[in-house]
Amino acid sequence: MTDKKPLKQYLMIPGPTPIPTEILSAMSHEMIGHRGPVFSKILAEVIEGLKWAYQTKNDVMVFPCSGTGGMETAVVNTLSAGDKALFVNIGNFGDRWIKIAKTYGVDAIDLKVERGTACDPKVLAAELAKDSNKEIKAVFMQQNETSTGVINDVKALAAVVRKSHPDVLILVDAVSGLLTADLKSDDWDLDVVVSGSQKAFMVPPGIAAVSMSKRAWKAYESSTLPKHYWDIKVQKKFADKGQTYTTPPESIIFGMHKAVEMLKKEGLENIFERHAENKKIVRAGLKGVGCKLLADDVCSSPAVTAIFPPDGVDAEKVRSEMRNRFGVELAPGQGDLKGKIFRIGHLGYVDKLELVATIGALELLFSQMGAPVEIGKGTKAALEQIK
Amino acid sequence: MTDKKPLKQYLMIPGPTPIPTEILSAMSHEMIGHRGPVFSKILAEVIEGLKWAYQTKNDVMVFPCSGTGGMETAVVNTLSAGDKALFVNIGNFGDRWIKIAKTYGVDAIDLKVERGTACDPKVLAAELAKDSNKEIKAVFMQQNETSTGVINDVKALAAVVRKSHPDVLILVDAVSGLLTADLKSDDWDLDVVVSGSQKAFMVPPGIAAVSMSKRAWKAYESSTLPKHYWDIKVQKKFADKGQTYTTPPESIIFGMHKAVEMLKKEGLENIFERHAENKKIVRAGLKGVGCKLLADDVCSSPAVTAIFPPDGVDAEKVRSEMRNRFGVELAPGQGDLKGKIFRIGHLGYVDKLELVATIGALELLFSQMGAPVEIGKGTKAALEQIK
Repeated sequence: MTDKKPLKQYLMIPGPTPIPTEILSAMSHEMIGHRGPVFSKILAEVIEGLKWAYQTKNDVMVFPCSGTGGMETAVVNTLSAGDKALFVNIGNFGDRWIKIAKTYGVDAIDLKVERGTACDPKVLAAELAKDSNKEIKAVFMQQNETSTGVINDVKALAAVVRKSHPDVLILVDAVSGLLTADLKSDDWDLDVVVSGSQKAFMVPPGIAAVSMSKRAWKAYESSTLPKHYWDIKVQKKFADKGQTYTTPPESIIFGMHKAVEMLKKEGLENIFERHAENKKIVRAGLKGVGCKLLADDVCSSPAVTAIFPPDGVDAEKVRSEMRNRFGVELAPGQGDLKGKIFRIGHLGYVDKLELVATIGALELLFSQMGAPVEIGKGTKAALEQIK
Repeated sequence: MTDKKPLKQYLMIPGPTPIPTEILSAMSHEMIGHRGPVFSKILAEVIEGLKWAYQTKNDVMVFPCSGTGGMETAVVNTLSAGDKALFVNIGNFGDRWIKIAKTYGVDAIDLKVERGTACDPKVLAAELAKDSNKEIKAVFMQQNETSTGVINDVKALAAVVRKSHPDVLILVDAVSGLLTADLKSDDWDLDVVVSGSQKAFMVPPGIAAVSMSKRAWKAYESSTLPKHYWDIKVQKKFADKGQTYTTPPESIIFGMHKAVEMLKKEGLENIFERHAENKKIVRAGLKGVGCKLLADDVCSSPAVTAIFPPDGVDAEKVRSEMRNRFGVELAPGQGDLKGKIFRIGHLGYVDKLELVATIGALELLFSQMGAPVEIGKGTKAALEQIK
């Protein structure tokens, strides 16, 4: 009996990303008392590392959950039913945050922009200008929209908010964006920032982190949405004694501990550059292959790229063939884009040469599927992006 | 420079428990696509294993969270604000479930019984008899109360409920109890059962599982409590295609996969017996040492034992000395019992000989702390419990 399956796996989805063996080894650790001094020290260092990644002096708390739990935490700790909040909505995760808010009775304004584009700060300014009575209490936005491969200019959007609405909350979903591009929580005056372990931290899923500014803590005091598991003041009370409210996923905390050590050694600028280079390789390579990309260069994500396959080639067929023949795992389209696009994740522990190889596999596959592709053109274009 | 710290750790807290190396190794696995066929197969086998442990044909869904998240899931998916629900409250986790329910506006009846005792089925029957208009919609109870080391007779309590209130929901927190003692979800007609990975499954924390009977699904349809992350119908929709709604903690799923394989091989009866033996060893040993135990033998937990130290010996001092001198990590008292008791966890991957050794360390320590303890008496009594 023969086994033709690919020898190796290339995980090219926008999270979880591949995990460095140093992190896997750190996670392969016996359990310890989660209310004892050893764990407290590790947790404190993880939180310190998160603050470094967030570029903040604000409190950062961790919750045992996936990124969506962090998004829910941001809503229930700052708002009350009937509160008006504006959602910069550039994709599926924008839709999701609105859905969460509406679930709790928040009066959500959906500032939906065309899929594949970022929110123009002027569009946000115009929307805010309509709010002459200053009823809007919070503005929510994605740093990076995973479903479309688009990055927002959070700095510019936040500046626009502060200009007309100096005291409203700015809440940023940075789950897939954090560490792939600059995000200065304090300099840009961001109140709540959400992240997850399974993205550029290169750690398996299991933890979300949520920061709270002074403004956010003030909002907490008047927020009446029901909360228990997500109650961030309770989480803060435990964080202050080096613990978490409920039993923490210790393995993930051990992994995060190693991850922040590795990432600090690399340095923020190098991490951002690495992701920017990944993006250039993927985009140049795919254009060389003749693919249309969903996002314009100007707002393209350093974490994930959304791709229309060549005419006549089925996006889901691309994914299954890439998986079965080459071991390359690609992400599908989400929402309205399901079946129309596929996505390449290039954040976290993904190397530039793996991306070049993936472009090569794609041009070979497209050619065999009958698309007018010149084999080698995409890989050449990709290679030329490597400094 | 010399280092006098203990060579090894003995984790004797009621979760997380120590992790077998087979499970740690299984967890030390690269990430794979969480919406791909390989992960789907693993997840399906984990859910199958959970159903085996639950002794149920009901749906079982997994959530990325700690046990408290599972408790919140049980509430928000079955009730509406103003609904009347009865809480069998035998300890701290009873208090917690009431707090969660009240957060969401549930009219919670607190059937509080003395700490250290189980709920007498007659007491529950009397409380239910007061509800002549049949307004109570749900009865919540702990299988095992981690804070006091008491196990409820869930079978008898459920039978009492069904007698007077045949159609109300019965919701059981089996987080620390599942697999330590028999729990027949279907035979006993339990509607919602909550468990966690970090207890008798011997897997690190990170996942809670929640079962839903047909009666519970019917209650879901009329439940109006706000839910997004905890929405169990959404989770079911994804489970039906071999996925989870949000990104799953893959490492924990890999660990659970190995755990259910190991546990099935051992068999339910053997697992229950192992925990029953652990309990006997600990209780006989501690009585030999002259300690008073919080729970009576008749309702004593196979998962955890709560202990009053000998007169004049400080409970927190016992914990720090056991940690610093012997590497034995014990759990503190919770709530009103903080500082008065300490607890020994003996569930999951804890061996009988480790328990005997822990008794030995305790009698040595107590003796050195001035208590009238005859060294060797406790260990002898403990050893005599081993078949």
